[in-house]
Amino acid sequence: MKAIIQTDLSNPRSLEWSDAPDPTLEEGQVLVSVRAVGLNRADLLQAAGHYPPPPGTTDILGLECAGVIEEVKGDVLGWKVGDEVCCLLSGGGFAEKVAVPAGQVLPLPEGYSFEEAASIVEVACTVFSNVVMVAGLTEGQTFLVHGGAGGIGTFAIQMAKQLGATVAVTAGSQEKLDKCAELGADILINYKEENFEEVLASRGGANVILDIMGAKYLDRNVKALAKDGHLVIIGMQGGVKGELNIGRLLSKRGSITATGLRYRDLADKARIVAATEDTVWPMLADGVITPQIHTVMDIRETASAHEILANGEVSGKVVLTV
Amino acid sequence: MKAIIQTDLSNPRSLEWSDAPDPTLEEGQVLVSVRAVGLNRADLLQAAGHYPPPPGTTDILGLECAGVIEEVKGDVLGWKVGDEVCCLLSGGGFAEKVAVPAGQVLPLPEGYSFEEAASIVEVACTVFSNVVMVAGLTEGQTFLVHGGAGGIGTFAIQMAKQLGATVAVTAGSQEKLDKCAELGADILINYKEENFEEVLASRGGANVILDIMGAKYLDRNVKALAKDGHLVIIGMQGGVKGELNIGRLLSKRGSITATGLRYRDLADKARIVAATEDTVWPMLADGVITPQIHTVMDIRETASAHEILANGEVSGKVVLTV
Repeated sequence: MKAIIQTDLSNPRSLEWSDAPDPTLEEGQVLVSVRAVGLNRADLLQAAGHYPPPPGTTDILGLECAGVIEEVKGDVLGWKVGDEVCCLLSGGGFAEKVAVPAGQVLPLPEGYSFEEAASIVEVACTVFSNVVMVAGLTEGQTFLVHGGAGGIGTFAIQMAKQLGATVAVTAGSQEKLDKCAELGADILINYKEENFEEVLASRGGANVILDIMGAKYLDRNVKALAKDGHLVIIGMQGGVKGELNIGRLLSKRGSITATGLRYRDLADKARIVAATEDTVWPMLADGVITPQIHTVMDIRETASAHEILANGEVSGKVVLTV
Repeated sequence: MKAIIQTDLSNPRSLEWSDAPDPTLEEGQVLVSVRAVGLNRADLLQAAGHYPPPPGTTDILGLECAGVIEEVKGDVLGWKVGDEVCCLLSGGGFAEKVAVPAGQVLPLPEGYSFEEAASIVEVACTVFSNVVMVAGLTEGQTFLVHGGAGGIGTFAIQMAKQLGATVAVTAGSQEKLDKCAELGADILINYKEENFEEVLASRGGANVILDIMGAKYLDRNVKALAKDGHLVIIGMQGGVKGELNIGRLLSKRGSITATGLRYRDLADKARIVAATEDTVWPMLADGVITPQIHTVMDIRETASAHEILANGEVSGKVVLTV
């Protein structure tokens, strides 16, 4: 098959559409003929050498895809050849074919194209697992997501609104905040002009915060928490080590979880995928959450796609077609 | 009535058995004639001016007591005059009488004296709520508690063993570690001789850590966590601010909660008391958890009792009788 191969490990943009061995299908897996693959910041990190795939996983990039099942092996939870599906991957999406554990396969959301489906699997599983399964966001609570106009943010705003939360977002421009407002965000914070922690504190604090900044925002996020609030850190774009004021956290009975999807075991991923399908897929079918696609490109342009995402001027996801 | 009154707010040992106004009974409360009261480190903090009672709570010290119901007002969940009970308090236990919300009243554990019951309410609710309700310790997991020979530690060891956990403890002397071993602890760590985080890491890490040290142990506790582990901080004897390595926490998908019982609202306390009674009271009745009482003193000796606890050379609880 063909796949995106990094030809020079010291150069994260040396990504070429080249020959690669076909995946070996294992018991309980399906082989998917990839039609579209979503690009994630984690792919950039992996190409830069900072986010190694879990043991036993292909080196090929790609954490989500959509396509058609070509082959199945063993018990695959009822999936069959010819099914149109989308998948949460541990890697390998930037290729013509990928082998996927059956527990990480979902149907295309009703009415979705391959491109739309490939843009939403990883973000849906990430946001749902962290915001609902880890932090327990419920109706009537206040939810803060940083980077409201990005891939995570645009999805999180819409999902949290559907759950009945009040949604606060941070972003760095009025244009981005306008987009967040269109998607339903209630509290719009330009981080260049306002301190988000003061805005949140003046409104009783955030019950759940979804954070991608890590150290840089640690103390400020704790300040922004409501009583019994939960900060979930899924990225460290603002650094790895930060000072934690335990007294402040204790005064709020607050919790901090730092977590991710990729290194979870198969059973855990299957549990998350099933719960996400149950709750989020109907929202996608109803059109109350819409996929936010910045641009669709040919998979041969993967290096350019990385460049676009790295520059940060994207609003929604970058999707590549095979 | 008589109560322990702090006569000089700048002197935490100026604690005298003096006249005080009787408590005013509110709707949904019972008036308890106190027979015994447990002393907690939080009482020392409050006398030193560092742990103010929640708004609307008496200034009188005392977070747990046992005694007899003298009077009830309104709906008190079936409690009646003459019932022998023990209570989780927001304050007021160091007195002849205390008014208690009905949701914070429990029966004396079967076969328990007032002194034994007064020694165990606060610790049982604290340990059960944090270790089980917050952190979800279950059978087969590894549990680490610091200060294994203290009031929290001695209870936590026994409860965690009953839940089927492997129990690791830290303490500062062989004598204390021997006591922990007698109570069932499996992994004994003299913190003066070994790094607890290395011992735990070599055994796969702790799924749940109950910590009273705060900042001083923050980084080391994160190192000691297992995958998906949960650190629950309920004290800050080692300081308030510490560096958090978010990358390390993320690599373990770890959680940190800093929390306490005292400032929770009535509904939350009632929920915790009910759950503790359901799970822990049968263990007390069966004798598989035994109360660890360091000494019983007369309530007029409260100042000396504070001194004894402050010196740290206690193994189990200090109880005062009225």
